[in-house]
Amino acid sequence: MNSKLKHFTRFESKELGEQLIHSALEYKLDPKKDHQKGAGKRIGCIFLNPSLRTRVSTQLAALNLGMEPIVLNMDKEGWALEMRDGAVMNKGTVEHIKDAAAVLGSYFDLLAIRAFPTLTHRDEDINDFAFGQFLKYSGKPIISLESAIRHPLQSLADQITMKEIFAEKRKPKVVLTWAPHIKAIPHAVANSFAEWTLGMGHELTITHPEGYELDQRFTKGATIETNQAKALEEADFVYVKNWSSFNDYGKILSTDPSWMLTEDSLSHAPKAKVMHCLPVRRNVELSDEILDGNRSLVQTQAQNRIFAAQSVISYLLDS
Amino acid sequence: MNSKLKHFTRFESKELGEQLIHSALEYKLDPKKDHQKGAGKRIGCIFLNPSLRTRVSTQLAALNLGMEPIVLNMDKEGWALEMRDGAVMNKGTVEHIKDAAAVLGSYFDLLAIRAFPTLTHRDEDINDFAFGQFLKYSGKPIISLESAIRHPLQSLADQITMKEIFAEKRKPKVVLTWAPHIKAIPHAVANSFAEWTLGMGHELTITHPEGYELDQRFTKGATIETNQAKALEEADFVYVKNWSSFNDYGKILSTDPSWMLTEDSLSHAPKAKVMHCLPVRRNVELSDEILDGNRSLVQTQAQNRIFAAQSVISYLLDS
Amino acid sequence: MNSKLKHFTRFESKELGEQLIHSALEYKLDPKKDHQKGAGKRIGCIFLNPSLRTRVSTQLAALNLGMEPIVLNMDKEGWALEMRDGAVMNKGTVEHIKDAAAVLGSYFDLLAIRAFPTLTHRDEDINDFAFGQFLKYSGKPIISLESAIRHPLQSLADQITMKEIFAEKRKPKVVLTWAPHIKAIPHAVANSFAEWTLGMGHELTITHPEGYELDQRFTKGATIETNQAKALEEADFVYVKNWSSFNDYGKILSTDPSWMLTEDSLSHAPKAKVMHCLPVRRNVELSDEILDGNRSLVQTQAQNRIFAAQSVISYLLDS
Repeated sequence: MNSKLKHFTRFESKELGEQLIHSALEYKLDPKKDHQKGAGKRIGCIFLNPSLRTRVSTQLAALNLGMEPIVLNMDKEGWALEMRDGAVMNKGTVEHIKDAAAVLGSYFDLLAIRAFPTLTHRDEDINDFAFGQFLKYSGKPIISLESAIRHPLQSLADQITMKEIFAEKRKPKVVLTWAPHIKAIPHAVANSFAEWTLGMGHELTITHPEGYELDQRFTKGATIETNQAKALEEADFVYVKNWSSFNDYGKILSTDPSWMLTEDSLSHAPKAKVMHCLPVRRNVELSDEILDGNRSLVQTQAQNRIFAAQSVISYLLDS
Repeated sequence: MNSKLKHFTRFESKELGEQLIHSALEYKLDPKKDHQKGAGKRIGCIFLNPSLRTRVSTQLAALNLGMEPIVLNMDKEGWALEMRDGAVMNKGTVEHIKDAAAVLGSYFDLLAIRAFPTLTHRDEDINDFAFGQFLKYSGKPIISLESAIRHPLQSLADQITMKEIFAEKRKPKVVLTWAPHIKAIPHAVANSFAEWTLGMGHELTITHPEGYELDQRFTKGATIETNQAKALEEADFVYVKNWSSFNDYGKILSTDPSWMLTEDSLSHAPKAKVMHCLPVRRNVELSDEILDGNRSLVQTQAQNRIFAAQSVISYLLDS
Repeated sequence: MNSKLKHFTRFESKELGEQLIHSALEYKLDPKKDHQKGAGKRIGCIFLNPSLRTRVSTQLAALNLGMEPIVLNMDKEGWALEMRDGAVMNKGTVEHIKDAAAVLGSYFDLLAIRAFPTLTHRDEDINDFAFGQFLKYSGKPIISLESAIRHPLQSLADQITMKEIFAEKRKPKVVLTWAPHIKAIPHAVANSFAEWTLGMGHELTITHPEGYELDQRFTKGATIETNQAKALEEADFVYVKNWSSFNDYGKILSTDPSWMLTEDSLSHAPKAKVMHCLPVRRNVELSDEILDGNRSLVQTQAQNRIFAAQSVISYLLDS
């Protein structure tokens, strides 16, 4: 454990990953065991984009630790933030991130922030520009609630779920498969899942149609296989996710329904458990039969979001 | 008392009604008397539609019992839910109720849900479809904060109010009168008021213009009288409410201003107290003179919403 | 101290001002020192308009005093309120302030309310009509979170900030300068700053382009100077703020960029500290160099919002 880690924004090390998973599973057994730890501390949860699971699970995690969470929906309750340094603010933005982040930093002990990508400004997104501005100007520890390129609390919850489920001594075969969707979706969940799965030492195969290659910063070490059927063979975990094109940035290149995951797709993966971060487009990304059957881990993942957040907040309170 | 009652969605029995009224009046005298009862428990208050009284009174009731309430405005903060089983989700809805309800069920000890009718899909509304999907998929006790066809916490507050006010030994004469409005309004408050008033053994007269007959499932046993003046004679309680047509579903058939309740309308009901669930359109449904005079119970009803909710939450915590 | 003061809506007296500043600075040293004072009490924070600092700082102040704050965003979560007595409500408003304020009054121990001006109905605005209706009908102590004509918690925070910074025995020279903006902005912050600064016995110069004279009810006793350069000479504190025209009500008469405050503007005010209530339009109202330099007090002002609110809530709890 790097005792100096101030923020939680990405995968750091296998050692820290294992520590956080271990701590989360302890909290799952006894959510209130550290109920005094955060007493008198406040976490500001700032959403520049919509949220259901992340919003609620983070609040519950904070309450479990005795903290007072305050949620700010800045997409609606607040106002449009100017992110660019040096901007002449004579247009639609009403407050500069420099000023807003510093104020929020002075109001809270911890900040948790969601800032989605634009999907139109590639350079800004790949440098996690908006999220980085919060990091730069708030002066307080920050937890990512999903940035332009990563969703580390989701990925930690995913790793916790795999750890709980997989009791065998061998390494599991993990497959991340692209799925169809009707909207242009960010890369953050897919990137982070790859980063954490590889970082924790698992074998990872990523399968997607041609043109859907992810940013190689996150996928180095994974096997890329454009034949979905082949990729899924003998899989232990199949993580289903849509993302828009990275190379042809933010574009939808395919909605080929044959990529939707069904029982049929898993005919050669009898033991495969299926994962998805939710929300899921039923019968577009995944068939009802999978989501409502025994293979599905989606509810376990969602519940583990609480303990992932609790583990991370607890860790940062110690830092 | 049916010790197995898991949800609070409607009138169940006179016995339970009396128990809840009694408990509410005790909480009104001493709101914090059970302040430890809900310690460590969480209630998720989910609004698919706007709310003022219901939102705040439910939060206060939960806080009085030591619970932690979390409000989710899913009409705005969240996203459009798909309610139909088997749907291919390639349109506007972003998450299926199956998945969302199960996650929320795993996050909270109790759920409280508001889901208004469509007023366009009659079959769905009369079967309380959206609310029923929450009941079906959440796996946790659910309190109705108004569904397509019922508003039981309002009706409980109304019964509490009548109980407080009416000290005579005889039965009170209760009248539910339709009032004009400029929008198509749901039937839930009127249905529930009839269901509870009749269920508690009171005599009920319902008066409305022709074509405004309510669903007979709720009004069986009531006297229907299309002459408002006659219906109001010697009334002890007059409950004023607009609703759209049930037979010509969701339509506005009349805005006849002579149906607005005024002092004049009550010239033959000297003792009549006037009730309304709020929000009220002043000088459209009810005249200022009534709302600002001694007949009005609307503020007492609104305040009793807290204790109605507290009584119900307390009951469900015991179940 | 006027022991009967029930509401906090404006500057009352130098004596009370000094008392509140003193109490705020004590809370700044030890925010939790009165953590039991508000136990079991609830404050309803009602926003008819957007808010960031005010919303969060008021919640934190209440939490510091052990109160339970509940936020209601009535611009979005609730509904349009009818403010006019006697209105026939057959248009867009869904609830009358008479009814809503009375209900909220019965639900909370304290109310805090934000109600911006229309900037189109001058007579209503200058009489603080909407805010006054809350005062008239809620029946509970009310704290202004900014009304049509005043923002007293901001002004108290500003006075706290000047008190902290200025250690000299002489009186400080305080200048309020108009700044350009692209939108029509209310007068409340400027009015209140003048009212409090003059009330606390400071010398105040107000500088603005011709046509931007403020309501004389607030500026009596101040020096008005339309030459900004001259006004700024030897200033100790420069408060920067845009406002729309008061005489040509709600209009933008100038966006002259030479009125933006820069280091150049302050070449003859070497010691000047610069204040702004935030949010600020960078490089329109104020230059980056000022906001990011040593002159800026804007972050201190924002942080002092917490202790201003805490001081006021604490005072009202004693009343």
